[in-house]
Amino acid sequence: MARLNTFFLPPEQWPANEGEVVRLSGPEARHMGTILRTEKAQTVRLFDGQGREGLFTVRDIAKHRADLEAVKLAEHPDPEDGLTLAIGWGKSKRRDYLLEKVVELQGNGVIFWQAKRSQGALPDDPKATWNEKFVQAAKQCGAVRLPNLETVPGGVEGLLAMAGAFDHCYLAWEAEEANTPLSPDMLSKGRTLVVIGPEGGFDQAEADKLLQAGFAPVTLGPSILRWETAAVYCLSLAMFGAQDRS
Amino acid sequence: MARLNTFFLPPEQWPANEGEVVRLSGPEARHMGTILRTEKAQTVRLFDGQGREGLFTVRDIAKHRADLEAVKLAEHPDPEDGLTLAIGWGKSKRRDYLLEKVVELQGNGVIFWQAKRSQGALPDDPKATWNEKFVQAAKQCGAVRLPNLETVPGGVEGLLAMAGAFDHCYLAWEAEEANTPLSPDMLSKGRTLVVIGPEGGFDQAEADKLLQAGFAPVTLGPSILRWETAAVYCLSLAMFGAQDRS
Repeated sequence: MARLNTFFLPPEQWPANEGEVVRLSGPEARHMGTILRTEKAQTVRLFDGQGREGLFTVRDIAKHRADLEAVKLAEHPDPEDGLTLAIGWGKSKRRDYLLEKVVELQGNGVIFWQAKRSQGALPDDPKATWNEKFVQAAKQCGAVRLPNLETVPGGVEGLLAMAGAFDHCYLAWEAEEANTPLSPDMLSKGRTLVVIGPEGGFDQAEADKLLQAGFAPVTLGPSILRWETAAVYCLSLAMFGAQDRS
Repeated sequence: MARLNTFFLPPEQWPANEGEVVRLSGPEARHMGTILRTEKAQTVRLFDGQGREGLFTVRDIAKHRADLEAVKLAEHPDPEDGLTLAIGWGKSKRRDYLLEKVVELQGNGVIFWQAKRSQGALPDDPKATWNEKFVQAAKQCGAVRLPNLETVPGGVEGLLAMAGAFDHCYLAWEAEEANTPLSPDMLSKGRTLVVIGPEGGFDQAEADKLLQAGFAPVTLGPSILRWETAAVYCLSLAMFGAQDRS
């Protein structure tokens, strides 16, 4: 059987019970009706990005809306483990690409932070387009949960304030102080935060603050990695670590 | 000390001994002289993409050529281990990106093969622009060896003919037959080949041929990965596996 098409339904619209009918509207409905030409009585898959997914039967469909009856609903609990990446902000053509990879590689979240050597100004709030990128990537790869997305102003102090939400905090450090390779094991237990510097690297003072706050320095290997390569490397190790555990 | 600038010197020009002077010409020389404004008596790093690197002093420099004296030469032996990816051909805007990642993540090589579901025709020979991408990526990340690059016509039979060059062969298979997760360990001993299908997936007959030839089916995890994500995932596990070993 061919894989079902998946559509995003905002969490606030999610049905409480099987048998309920929801109305999909906007671009997702247009995608379903006009582009994919979905028909009455067909089955589609919906997800809300917060762990809920389900199979729905099309009861009625028009150009800009679709009425869908929930046939089978499932809910996946919040993960207790997983990797969040804190990435030093920079102007980059590769940001959209990285956001897609975070979804595909099952990252828990992305935090953009303003580093001393960051080029360009960090937006105050995550842009709607970034979340849209998450949604599209999740539709493609079957993810049930959209990664968390935050921007943290206030430089490294802003990051330090968030550290308490994590069980383990690491600093991806390209210097002699980091002898320990980051491993899948380190990323497989609990909520983990890995901080990646901006393209220009960490400022020594920034790194010192993180180290003094208990962020463990780790190396990502002998190669000099671009920021987005460092990110997918960490995400890949974490995704393997999760499989190894189960 | 700031990291030295690196330039590519074709292997056929590599000096036999320290003290010899080589002449760098063409775009690399232009990059050195005109763009980076390197001056006489400065030190630069050269590499030949086949394991040799060295520090050189600039004896003379003009717009399109530089005469460089070898001060310190090093040679790195062929790796006995490492990952080669065989990737099902497809039209993709992300190929250049992937070629860069293969260098950064220390992949041994890339083989493009024509799958049944490949869209577009595989070129007969690796394009010069692909190798140039390798060179630029290697300059940025300090790699001493350019990955091997091949195109294999003849579909999956062409791939099977190459299997003998590898110690371990795997098939990244998204189906129920693949229960075994690909692990860093599997990629850390000997020369390994991992076959990734085209965007449309493997044809059953193709997969059967590979399985019958002894390619071990492995899963890359629960998520549906795009071809270039599957590639960087495998490369990341291999790079970690290499660190873990040493």
